[in-house]
Amino acid sequence: MKSLSARQIAEMVKGEVLGNPEQTVERVSSLKDAGADCCSFVGNKKYEHLLAATAAGIVLICRDLADQPLNNRTFIVCQNCDLAFGKVIEYFAMPRPASPVGVHPSAVVHPGVKLGKNVSIGPCAVLEEGVEVGDDTVIGAGCYIGNDVKIGAGCRLWPNVTVNYRCIVGNKVILNSGVVIGCDGFGFLPTAEGIVKVSQTGIVQIDDDVEIGANSTVDRARFGKTWIKRNVKIDNLVMVAHNVVVGQSCILVAQCGIAGSAELEQGVIIAAQAGVNGHITVGAGTQLAGTSSLAKSCPPNSIMLGTPAEPQREFMSRYTTPKKVERLKEKVAELEKKIAELEKK
Amino acid sequence: MKSLSARQIAEMVKGEVLGNPEQTVERVSSLKDAGADCCSFVGNKKYEHLLAATAAGIVLICRDLADQPLNNRTFIVCQNCDLAFGKVIEYFAMPRPASPVGVHPSAVVHPGVKLGKNVSIGPCAVLEEGVEVGDDTVIGAGCYIGNDVKIGAGCRLWPNVTVNYRCIVGNKVILNSGVVIGCDGFGFLPTAEGIVKVSQTGIVQIDDDVEIGANSTVDRARFGKTWIKRNVKIDNLVMVAHNVVVGQSCILVAQCGIAGSAELEQGVIIAAQAGVNGHITVGAGTQLAGTSSLAKSCPPNSIMLGTPAEPQREFMSRYTTPKKVERLKEKVAELEKKIAELEKK
Amino acid sequence: MKSLSARQIAEMVKGEVLGNPEQTVERVSSLKDAGADCCSFVGNKKYEHLLAATAAGIVLICRDLADQPLNNRTFIVCQNCDLAFGKVIEYFAMPRPASPVGVHPSAVVHPGVKLGKNVSIGPCAVLEEGVEVGDDTVIGAGCYIGNDVKIGAGCRLWPNVTVNYRCIVGNKVILNSGVVIGCDGFGFLPTAEGIVKVSQTGIVQIDDDVEIGANSTVDRARFGKTWIKRNVKIDNLVMVAHNVVVGQSCILVAQCGIAGSAELEQGVIIAAQAGVNGHITVGAGTQLAGTSSLAKSCPPNSIMLGTPAEPQREFMSRYTTPKKVERLKEKVAELEKKIAELEKK
Repeated sequence: MKSLSARQIAEMVKGEVLGNPEQTVERVSSLKDAGADCCSFVGNKKYEHLLAATAAGIVLICRDLADQPLNNRTFIVCQNCDLAFGKVIEYFAMPRPASPVGVHPSAVVHPGVKLGKNVSIGPCAVLEEGVEVGDDTVIGAGCYIGNDVKIGAGCRLWPNVTVNYRCIVGNKVILNSGVVIGCDGFGFLPTAEGIVKVSQTGIVQIDDDVEIGANSTVDRARFGKTWIKRNVKIDNLVMVAHNVVVGQSCILVAQCGIAGSAELEQGVIIAAQAGVNGHITVGAGTQLAGTSSLAKSCPPNSIMLGTPAEPQREFMSRYTTPKKVERLKEKVAELEKKIAELEKK
Repeated sequence: MKSLSARQIAEMVKGEVLGNPEQTVERVSSLKDAGADCCSFVGNKKYEHLLAATAAGIVLICRDLADQPLNNRTFIVCQNCDLAFGKVIEYFAMPRPASPVGVHPSAVVHPGVKLGKNVSIGPCAVLEEGVEVGDDTVIGAGCYIGNDVKIGAGCRLWPNVTVNYRCIVGNKVILNSGVVIGCDGFGFLPTAEGIVKVSQTGIVQIDDDVEIGANSTVDRARFGKTWIKRNVKIDNLVMVAHNVVVGQSCILVAQCGIAGSAELEQGVIIAAQAGVNGHITVGAGTQLAGTSSLAKSCPPNSIMLGTPAEPQREFMSRYTTPKKVERLKEKVAELEKKIAELEKK
Repeated sequence: MKSLSARQIAEMVKGEVLGNPEQTVERVSSLKDAGADCCSFVGNKKYEHLLAATAAGIVLICRDLADQPLNNRTFIVCQNCDLAFGKVIEYFAMPRPASPVGVHPSAVVHPGVKLGKNVSIGPCAVLEEGVEVGDDTVIGAGCYIGNDVKIGAGCRLWPNVTVNYRCIVGNKVILNSGVVIGCDGFGFLPTAEGIVKVSQTGIVQIDDDVEIGANSTVDRARFGKTWIKRNVKIDNLVMVAHNVVVGQSCILVAQCGIAGSAELEQGVIIAAQAGVNGHITVGAGTQLAGTSSLAKSCPPNSIMLGTPAEPQREFMSRYTTPKKVERLKEKVAELEKKIAELEKK
């Protein structure tokens, strides 16, 4: 059984012990479920009541909470509790199952495929002609890697990922199960002979350090590329349409969608279930609130809410309209009375 | 050719025949498309006009409709028409194709895997080391079952389901095609060195009698477990984030999403395309309307609508604001006239 | 290296050359990124500024832009620029990788399966008993085709598609990766003994010339069929529930959802992230705006916006309410002053 003392944890996270440095814990837990053998954490003063009630042996806390009574518990004051607790979590966590190096005999790998060192190709994975895979990359069971796809080093493709032909995946990219990269963009043109499919001849390029969540989809470009730049983090069930450019370090939360040819500059955050219209530019650092729909381009560092999305001030003005109307009704009723009195005279 | 008489159906569904008990039918149909050889149903007085027009030989009806003219048709009055009709549907339905017991030779099953009795493992399915599967469970073609996953008895995993390492699936669980269980939670922390991935070291636990719809995703916990409790029913393309707890008998309709660490108490209904914010508690029996976004915790049996979601009364007040404004404009115009007259005097 | 002269392009697209017919290009590009060796296009006067700035050697333009200065570039005036540019794109595009005719040795094809001419069955694909596949159809790696499924001629199923038992797929149908056809509909009935699953005994029928985007799902009917009619185009991550009828040439954009038993008549467009309620009829040619939710049936050619969706006029009236309230507040303040003056007298 692994264990850690408060002293050891404080060293690990560069924190300061309040209480008994020899207090030990054997696992992590939420404040609510914790016992004396547990390490827990609270990084925000608004959860003070949970800290008061917890039976955790050791609690990582932020500086604001350092004046709380210990009550037989030991506190460790940390700069960034969440990050610090992550280290404790990792210490106690079982390691991920290893991915055996080599090509599983049931995998179907075209003879011309170039594999780096320490590559792992899972059962029933399929790698077509012309594929290249960098060192230390893991391609899970049932993955499909289409013709001429290039995948960098240190990537992990979880089982049942699809990367269609000619797409390019950088280094240290994580693709969760069910992700589809390089499916056809949604392009149709009305003609005299009816709706005609528009060929989608481009690719998807995914740069280094990108993570994409389960069952998300990224369409190939009509021509050129759909481009997910470095360090972008995409959650589950997200839709990125053809020719979209997602700037460096953008965050796309679950079930949001980016329509065709939109460009997100660096550091944009699109919250859950939100949508971005096609052919617009979203300024760097912009935040779009959950379920909101951004119809038009916006300047850097915008905070946009609602459908269609508006800046915070306009949104709040709209949101508080019903209250304004109630107040206005009262005022009008007052005036009505006054007028009635004036009329009597 | 199968057939049923009205008498036989009445026995099957414990209903009462109005009309000819020897009338027979050979298939089921909607009221609109039905002919004399069809059994149909209408469980709601608002569809009275469809009942009037149908040519169905036999119609299962609710008590309220028992006074409608038969016109050569036979009615069967039922307590619960929908449930009763389900029995007739099942009688006439072709059985599902059988799943051959045993391990298909193309499946890749680690030698240490423990399989119960009458288990069926489909073609190209992959079961990693340490997996356990209960009696009578069917694992479809192309499914991936990660290391140390436990799956109970009487489950059905349709083709191309992914269950990642260490997750726990109870008894009589149905996972539709494309479901992903135990993908990484979406956790990143801003640090001085940039965004850092937070290890997702927990699991997903799915209790008995759960059904999950096609292409839905359930993230593994940061630590501990994401927990889908007994009898929960989840539709297609639903997102359940890390550390969420979905209480017993909750219903999550298509394309809804539950953000990290939210807790749904028992019997909550989240309608289609709705969203629940992270770290909040949704009281037992609460209903969240379609496309609504619940931002804050709410007490049991709340009915919440809109974005952000409000109780029905507040929502309706907001919704009717434009009408109130029109009335107010008229009133103000009136007062203006009166004032003008007063000023003249 | 492929190349085309302006003269050749004009012939290809039936356009008119303005400038040098011997100007040649070697690839396509967006206006912004183009160099002198590129062909680009602009089909809308609102992008006039991009045309002014582009360095593209050849630009396909619409008639409205024919008066713009050439500045060493060559223009080709086209009837439908988008369509015309598609032809140039296709000329320069690398062809799609060929799909080898025949059954890959790793595929699992039941001996009774009937395959047409020139069929391609990819690695690790699974075709169950009773399947029939028409001429020239490509079934990608890892696809699962359930018992008795019929697939027409000239179809393409991209890798990792699932079509469950007895569903029917017409000719020239495209199913992108991760699509699930024929998963169980979401049907449960409350009873005295708790929630009971309703058997889903019907099928999905997909008619000719349909395309369905990556990770979309189409549920099988409770009985009868869920029906996607001819020429319907469905984008990624779309949900079509049980017993829905999607009329000819409808367009369902990404992440929208259609609830059970809804009927979309011909030519309906459901924009991204929108939703259609169950058991309603959407009149032919209706357009539902992005993220809107249609609660009730609507007549043909409706344009509906908002949640719940309203006709454009009502939506705009609702949308402009905050402004009306501001004007009303000003008006009331004016009247108040006047009354105060009257009272003084």
